[in-house]
Amino acid sequence: MTESSAPSSALLTDRYELTMLDAALLDGTYDRECVFEAFTRRLPAGRRYGILAGTGRLLELIDRFRFGDDELEYLRDNRVVRQETLDWLADYRFSGTIRGYREGEVFFPGSPFLIVDAPFAEGVILETLILSVFNYDSAVASAAARMVTAAGGRPIAEMGSRRASERSAVAAARAAYVAGFSATSNLEAGRTWGVPTMGTAAHAFTLLHDSEEDAFRAQVAAMGPGTTLLVDTFDVEKAIETAVRVAGPGLGAIRLDSGDLPNLVRRVRDQLDRLGATETRITVTNDLDEFTIAALSSSPVDSYGVGTSVVTGSGSPASGMVYKLVAHRERDGDGEWVAVAKKSDGKPSIGGRKHPVRRLDSDGRAVAEVVHIVEAGGTPDDTGRDLLVPLITDGELHREHLGAEGAKRAREHREAAMRELPDQAFRLGRGDPVLPTIFA
Amino acid sequence: MTESSAPSSALLTDRYELTMLDAALLDGTYDRECVFEAFTRRLPAGRRYGILAGTGRLLELIDRFRFGDDELEYLRDNRVVRQETLDWLADYRFSGTIRGYREGEVFFPGSPFLIVDAPFAEGVILETLILSVFNYDSAVASAAARMVTAAGGRPIAEMGSRRASERSAVAAARAAYVAGFSATSNLEAGRTWGVPTMGTAAHAFTLLHDSEEDAFRAQVAAMGPGTTLLVDTFDVEKAIETAVRVAGPGLGAIRLDSGDLPNLVRRVRDQLDRLGATETRITVTNDLDEFTIAALSSSPVDSYGVGTSVVTGSGSPASGMVYKLVAHRERDGDGEWVAVAKKSDGKPSIGGRKHPVRRLDSDGRAVAEVVHIVEAGGTPDDTGRDLLVPLITDGELHREHLGAEGAKRAREHREAAMRELPDQAFRLGRGDPVLPTIFA
Repeated sequence: MTESSAPSSALLTDRYELTMLDAALLDGTYDRECVFEAFTRRLPAGRRYGILAGTGRLLELIDRFRFGDDELEYLRDNRVVRQETLDWLADYRFSGTIRGYREGEVFFPGSPFLIVDAPFAEGVILETLILSVFNYDSAVASAAARMVTAAGGRPIAEMGSRRASERSAVAAARAAYVAGFSATSNLEAGRTWGVPTMGTAAHAFTLLHDSEEDAFRAQVAAMGPGTTLLVDTFDVEKAIETAVRVAGPGLGAIRLDSGDLPNLVRRVRDQLDRLGATETRITVTNDLDEFTIAALSSSPVDSYGVGTSVVTGSGSPASGMVYKLVAHRERDGDGEWVAVAKKSDGKPSIGGRKHPVRRLDSDGRAVAEVVHIVEAGGTPDDTGRDLLVPLITDGELHREHLGAEGAKRAREHREAAMRELPDQAFRLGRGDPVLPTIFA
Repeated sequence: MTESSAPSSALLTDRYELTMLDAALLDGTYDRECVFEAFTRRLPAGRRYGILAGTGRLLELIDRFRFGDDELEYLRDNRVVRQETLDWLADYRFSGTIRGYREGEVFFPGSPFLIVDAPFAEGVILETLILSVFNYDSAVASAAARMVTAAGGRPIAEMGSRRASERSAVAAARAAYVAGFSATSNLEAGRTWGVPTMGTAAHAFTLLHDSEEDAFRAQVAAMGPGTTLLVDTFDVEKAIETAVRVAGPGLGAIRLDSGDLPNLVRRVRDQLDRLGATETRITVTNDLDEFTIAALSSSPVDSYGVGTSVVTGSGSPASGMVYKLVAHRERDGDGEWVAVAKKSDGKPSIGGRKHPVRRLDSDGRAVAEVVHIVEAGGTPDDTGRDLLVPLITDGELHREHLGAEGAKRAREHREAAMRELPDQAFRLGRGDPVLPTIFA
């Protein structure tokens, strides 16, 4: 279920979180009960909705957020915090409660997609980890969902590992899968998250051989005629002739990774059909994004492979999510709850504990994101779909969100949540968020 | 020196690399001696040079590129490759030779910054890992170097961990440091790579307290008056008055994270001076990039903190680097060397083993990137600065590139390499690569 090794995630943290803890331990405010909230102020320019991804990864990382000897030694040697704080960190284990949008859920500006109830000390030190995971994974999922729409039911594989740093690549493969991609090239994503993997050969394999025919024969010998042959190393037309001669008309697929795609795809389909390879599929992998995929919608393409654009969020590689303290008790234990928010220029926040619901019309179509400000907690009196599910309760992970099973559930939820959206959500052109966010 | 745990990196790999290996083992081409080369076809639009980063990370990842029981089990269960191939992978350890540009080196389109000499099987399966590391780390370093130039000697801290996925954040902190940033907020980058860390408090710390003054008192009590107080939670002018009253005129610094920066900075400087805090520094951290940093060049800012823009490569989050087979022997062992290259539409490559030098004029100023095509290897007869250094020789890592020491050396080399560039390299406006790449 989890990655094969489980190093501590505790130092994947901005230093200021520990120095705030250090000061709060000194003045006694460290255990004031707090509510932290994660949300985004805006969607990337022109996007109509976002897809939340990362929850399953985050929960496993929180489970490994422990300060062991190595972590404490680094903090001590570098005088990051005082000894009292090191002692507190040595015992740290998140004991609070986290609720949030289900992974795969649609979100909008202001959607409070994660709500953390914990003493200040326990909640504040998770900020960086929470934002790192959601900002990246949701950037990928939000872009990927648009590509899935553009593909109109044809399968898309994620193959951008080389365009993301090596561990982001795994997260990206998972996030794209949550958003509806059917497979990935990344083997670690297959192992850790159960994402189906795919891929057969690169140009290097053809170039290694004394002829393209030798390369195709070697590949078919190892993988059978149902394999996908890469046909654009030299001359596409000759390659297809060779491919069908070598593999027979039962050749599984050919892959195009360059060229003037709409025209080339049409010619290739005609050639394959003339050669009797009418069932041989065409997959294209040439610098695609949601727009070029849409431009191929009337071409006889059978599947797509997408690299750079999906792992970099198609122009928006970070989602702009923030994590804010929105309420705390005035004293430890029995003080009054106080809603708090930064007031300064340009980056306003809305204080107070939130409870979001998605308001649906009588046809089950989403019409608004309604964010109730609920002083004392509890579920608001609203018939909309409740958007919060428990993720961690009193320090215990809800395990259905974890591992391959969690990723699969997120993928299914994403499909259901997107079905609620009005049609204009799925236009690729620039527009406003498709639902208004209403603070009630 | 290395990360505290060392999981296998072997599955951070595209599936097609292993299926190519599978087919090559079957037809006997797997041990043809090969030369692979990594380069980029172009710089991001308008950039005049790139900074190579990631080498030290890559070498440690190659050292951990081993197929253990868990990795082999996954590959077996999912029928990725045949049993013979699993047996080969079980014994895999890279035994070839890798030379490359020194980490921190300047590069241009076509610069062959990594040259791998290995049997096909050993070299082909490193493709994804090599590209993941260099594409991301160099995207960050290339953007960061421009920010360092824009800052004109004022220190810049990297604080974008929350805008990159959690492990990319560590790589980004390291890459920015290589490119001349002075510190990072990321504690893991401090531990693993020796990057100095910084940071004191977020708005949450002020909001937790019953008053801003309480928060400032708590912070000064824990960290001393030399700390940096964040003054834009409510009203900047009142906050500064409070800050100097609480910490005294010896207050270390104040931080501004919002607002109309050039005007605000000037007003804040005047206010601090009036209060006698003439030595208190001003650090600004408000959505900066190379352009907004440059716009602050005449403002009394003492240091910068940069987040999103540096960890996302300031608009170019992936460097577009590729890894290509450029030459191989026709048979195993004693065959002729053959230069190879993909010929198809739009993505041409230049075959053959390369040896790059940087041509300098009599003042030591760089004038061209000269890439010699050298059939048999060896150093070309050229008085330019030889750009290749050994990284791995016959499977042995050159350890001076590793760990904190390697990152520090890379940082120093980056400074020296940039000093060679002509002045127009440092213009922020869009332009062509500042050196021509000449294939000789």
